[in-house]
Amino acid sequence: MSKHIYIYSPSSAVRDKAAFKRGVKRLKALGHEVEVDESALKSQQRFAGDDATRLAAIGRAAASGADAALISRGGYGLTRILDALPYKAIAKAIERGTEFIGLSDFTALQCALLVKTGAVSWAGPAVGEDFGAEAGADDIMEACFDDLLYGQGEGTGWRLPARDAAVGEGLRGIHGAPLWGGNLCVLTALLGTPYFPAVDKGVLFLEDVNEHPYRVERMLDQLRHAGVLARQKAVVLGQFTGYKKSAHDRGFGLPGVVERLRSLLPKVPILTGLPFGHVPTKVLLPFGAKVELAADGRDIFMVWGHRHAHAH
Amino acid sequence: MSKHIYIYSPSSAVRDKAAFKRGVKRLKALGHEVEVDESALKSQQRFAGDDATRLAAIGRAAASGADAALISRGGYGLTRILDALPYKAIAKAIERGTEFIGLSDFTALQCALLVKTGAVSWAGPAVGEDFGAEAGADDIMEACFDDLLYGQGEGTGWRLPARDAAVGEGLRGIHGAPLWGGNLCVLTALLGTPYFPAVDKGVLFLEDVNEHPYRVERMLDQLRHAGVLARQKAVVLGQFTGYKKSAHDRGFGLPGVVERLRSLLPKVPILTGLPFGHVPTKVLLPFGAKVELAADGRDIFMVWGHRHAHAH
Repeated sequence: MSKHIYIYSPSSAVRDKAAFKRGVKRLKALGHEVEVDESALKSQQRFAGDDATRLAAIGRAAASGADAALISRGGYGLTRILDALPYKAIAKAIERGTEFIGLSDFTALQCALLVKTGAVSWAGPAVGEDFGAEAGADDIMEACFDDLLYGQGEGTGWRLPARDAAVGEGLRGIHGAPLWGGNLCVLTALLGTPYFPAVDKGVLFLEDVNEHPYRVERMLDQLRHAGVLARQKAVVLGQFTGYKKSAHDRGFGLPGVVERLRSLLPKVPILTGLPFGHVPTKVLLPFGAKVELAADGRDIFMVWGHRHAHAH
Repeated sequence: MSKHIYIYSPSSAVRDKAAFKRGVKRLKALGHEVEVDESALKSQQRFAGDDATRLAAIGRAAASGADAALISRGGYGLTRILDALPYKAIAKAIERGTEFIGLSDFTALQCALLVKTGAVSWAGPAVGEDFGAEAGADDIMEACFDDLLYGQGEGTGWRLPARDAAVGEGLRGIHGAPLWGGNLCVLTALLGTPYFPAVDKGVLFLEDVNEHPYRVERMLDQLRHAGVLARQKAVVLGQFTGYKKSAHDRGFGLPGVVERLRSLLPKVPILTGLPFGHVPTKVLLPFGAKVELAADGRDIFMVWGHRHAHAH
């Protein structure tokens, strides 16, 4: 059954138009009816059009009646316009069955939307980098996307790295915890503002790209000092990629950052290996939905139940 | 009259030992008695010794009875240990006449110290980069350092860039406003935590290095969304240096970032050109002290009165 996919650009200008075109083509090849927003390929400085243009595009995505609204790409642009986003229109669209999906800069919209309306959006792929990947779209990502579109996805799972086996063994089942998170840098850029969700007893997932481990640690410490980490039932780390090590590090790196965090937060399980981030193989995650989290040895299961009950 | 200078390393490990030695030599050449902390040149991963080592060094600086405690360098390390800093000991040392001076990562200590004790520290030079600069220490920086040491500094001044002349003309005198700020990245890394000073009607100064204008804008927007900027009597931008422009910018840059901020905060004068940041020519600024701010055309005057009244 064909689905209606709306593609729009809320953040940075699309520079890799070949990838964008491949992404549109791939979505059509999957049998979907693809609608490209009129300003999806606009460019104004770094942005996909000026603030008003991008706000209008987000409004059109909300009014599209599509089954899924996909971002062309992330980048930068949403934190600029958080005061003006059409939150109610997006929440109504989601209620009517349009799933809002994205990542990276999109984390800002997802956080603010949760604060303002409680609406559930999805952490997931972008058109260019994911569906338009030069090596072809990732199978697992596409399967998860299908699961969401056809209402069959009720959870996900992954395997902890061997060195974190003890974390899986020590994990007690978590029930009814709000899942939230996304890009660490964008999320911490909302701390102290009215757009940062006050989620207690949640499951917080985090990923980032091009951020050196010392910056990752500084951001995690900001969340820790703000009391955010201690309030969660679990922290789930996705993929941290693209940074350059330095000769100055002398052994300082992400494994040590995680180890230190665990020693400082002995009551909060910190899981790793979530297949989400700026990597081809990514699952889709319901931002704002309640989840169960359980482990069988190194295998982690995250279940959110049947969310997509809309008949089209 | 010779002054006693204590040099310690609260943040990153000193890698440029030649610069450090030049800095020590220069301070001695200026006639000072220079005391180098026993762990000033320690190295553990990225840090000047592990957390306990650096905390002990900060404690020794507070106990030194020196006229000034100078950091060897900035980098990264203080946000990790904010929960454990000897705030009372530092505040007592300051009360007894030891001026704590630094910048960059040191901003974290300054913010937290102000929150915990109200003590005034100084935004100013580091030993390696400033006194040990390969081209020789900067004259203006050294003159300001002298002013502080000999209790003669009662303010500073600078000239607005020509394009900001109107801001100077529109500036109404500001009186008794707490001066605070420092490194934008480190300052925003404290937002939402108990270490972020709740300064109302203050003068907020900001600088940064190696941060692209889009990141500077995102951080300024975080302060704006948190209500911090609107609560200030003025925002004073220092030097933003070391970042790389990108072909993707297409005209997006710092002048536009400042212009947009002004349009969003019409009631808060945003001054530019403060000689402070990761540049040789830097003034020393009393973090936490009350200042007057006034303009004569493009010339800006910042006055804090006679602060250093200790007889040694």
